[in-house]
Amino acid sequence: MLPFSRVTIIGIGLIGSSVARAVRATMPSVRLTGYDADAGVRETADRLELFDDVTDTPGASVTDADLVILCVPVGAMGAAGAAIADDLPADAIVSDVGSCKAEVVRALAEALPGAIVIPAHPVAGTENSGPEAGFATLFKHRWCIVTPPEGAAPFAVERVCEFWRRLGSDVETMAPDHHDRVLAITSHLPHLIAYTIVGTASDMEEVTQSEVIKYSAGGFRDFTRIAASDPTMWRDVFLSNREAVLDMLQRFSEDLSALQRAIRWGKGDELFDLFTRTRAVRRSIIDQGQDDPAPDFGRTRE
Amino acid sequence: MLPFSRVTIIGIGLIGSSVARAVRATMPSVRLTGYDADAGVRETADRLELFDDVTDTPGASVTDADLVILCVPVGAMGAAGAAIADDLPADAIVSDVGSCKAEVVRALAEALPGAIVIPAHPVAGTENSGPEAGFATLFKHRWCIVTPPEGAAPFAVERVCEFWRRLGSDVETMAPDHHDRVLAITSHLPHLIAYTIVGTASDMEEVTQSEVIKYSAGGFRDFTRIAASDPTMWRDVFLSNREAVLDMLQRFSEDLSALQRAIRWGKGDELFDLFTRTRAVRRSIIDQGQDDPAPDFGRTRE
Repeated sequence: MLPFSRVTIIGIGLIGSSVARAVRATMPSVRLTGYDADAGVRETADRLELFDDVTDTPGASVTDADLVILCVPVGAMGAAGAAIADDLPADAIVSDVGSCKAEVVRALAEALPGAIVIPAHPVAGTENSGPEAGFATLFKHRWCIVTPPEGAAPFAVERVCEFWRRLGSDVETMAPDHHDRVLAITSHLPHLIAYTIVGTASDMEEVTQSEVIKYSAGGFRDFTRIAASDPTMWRDVFLSNREAVLDMLQRFSEDLSALQRAIRWGKGDELFDLFTRTRAVRRSIIDQGQDDPAPDFGRTRE
Repeated sequence: MLPFSRVTIIGIGLIGSSVARAVRATMPSVRLTGYDADAGVRETADRLELFDDVTDTPGASVTDADLVILCVPVGAMGAAGAAIADDLPADAIVSDVGSCKAEVVRALAEALPGAIVIPAHPVAGTENSGPEAGFATLFKHRWCIVTPPEGAAPFAVERVCEFWRRLGSDVETMAPDHHDRVLAITSHLPHLIAYTIVGTASDMEEVTQSEVIKYSAGGFRDFTRIAASDPTMWRDVFLSNREAVLDMLQRFSEDLSALQRAIRWGKGDELFDLFTRTRAVRRSIIDQGQDDPAPDFGRTRE
């Protein structure tokens, strides 16, 4: 018994195309329909044969769906919802893959009054974008957080959870607000910091850009990976989860000031204590299978 | 014609043991001697057969050397130099692998007056420590920066450069002060930021430690890798390269404040422009072979 039999994906980027590939791989009898606002992306999706059908309008993509997943930047969720409102079957479930949830819950409730909306966030991705960057195992052994709005029907929630389990994810449910605080520290702040430091390094005068690139293996290159993530997606994340991001940023800045002071005043013990504590966090992440224990991220050793 | 025929390594951690392995692999006729202040590490080095000889005192390890490489934390360089001063042959070259150079040049000039000191910094490493973490190809296709003090004999500099080329490195020479500025932005600041954010995330109240670990694949885990680097080594780096690190940190903090303001006031264009610029830096790093183009750092896809 599959949780859904006719799935529509709106927005065919890294995540949307990965969902399509994962559905094909794990639930081959599901009928897959896709739509993207960009005609070039629709053509690519056709060429890659990601869907049974790619439609020319958002409305046409949902008329027969029992699950519609919006895979667009969070700032575009409201508009994407409005674009399917007239054609959405009454019993279809609408979900999404956005990285912040309170704002998406609000925008979809407004755009789709009366519709069954069960938002979700697969915590997975790479630094690459577009339909060709996706792959079927992106969600395997990664968490997917389902964030039902208050009063959501338990059976609808369970169908969305089961859908993600079929794609290989471990599933948790969480209130949208709590999700946004958890992700602000585990994902949004790290991206913000990475974007900042890559910008700072680009603006140096006496250290040339070419030197920054050449010697990036000393640590800098690790930041450039996540600072190469999709600009539109991340602009929307920071604007949509503003309050939680600003709070985490404030905590980070205070901690950074404390370290700055320890360096200025030569307090080696404070530095050593922190650096020992952070090492233990890495061990937990590896023990729980959330990262690769290969040294240096398993980069090629030749 | 090998640049050196009797090489001594003092300090048998990740880097020291990797140099030993790389010498064995690329210059098998070189006689290798090792010493470490920790008796347990000396036993491990013996068991791993990393050297022709592991001595019980630093002095005994250098009596016959034509190259001595100090592979100890930068704060321990002066003491390591002093410990070999009486036994060092007059024509031996002393080098090191420290991550900051002006302070090492100063400490070794004081500890070894009259000795030939040609410092170097292989820009390579992993998050793991100790003699068992090393491997022979660690330096391959990575940069090694040689930082001759003023007035160093060109022939001595060239021998050290050639040594690192034999281990597979691309070699540059640079003034010690400039090295310290370049590394402050490409390596020291990234480590400082990573240590800070991992500390900030550990101190959250309403988001549990277990949630931080579980959802770390959203970006946070990338920071934990470099925040798992050796605590002693990094304490010493920040204290020894204090001035340059504090300057870079100041620039970073200003840039972070600007982003914070853009988020608070909803200036999406500013965010988008920065995020587009940083993506280009990533492309340059990959084009120049300083990182792996595999998405998600090539983590296992199964």
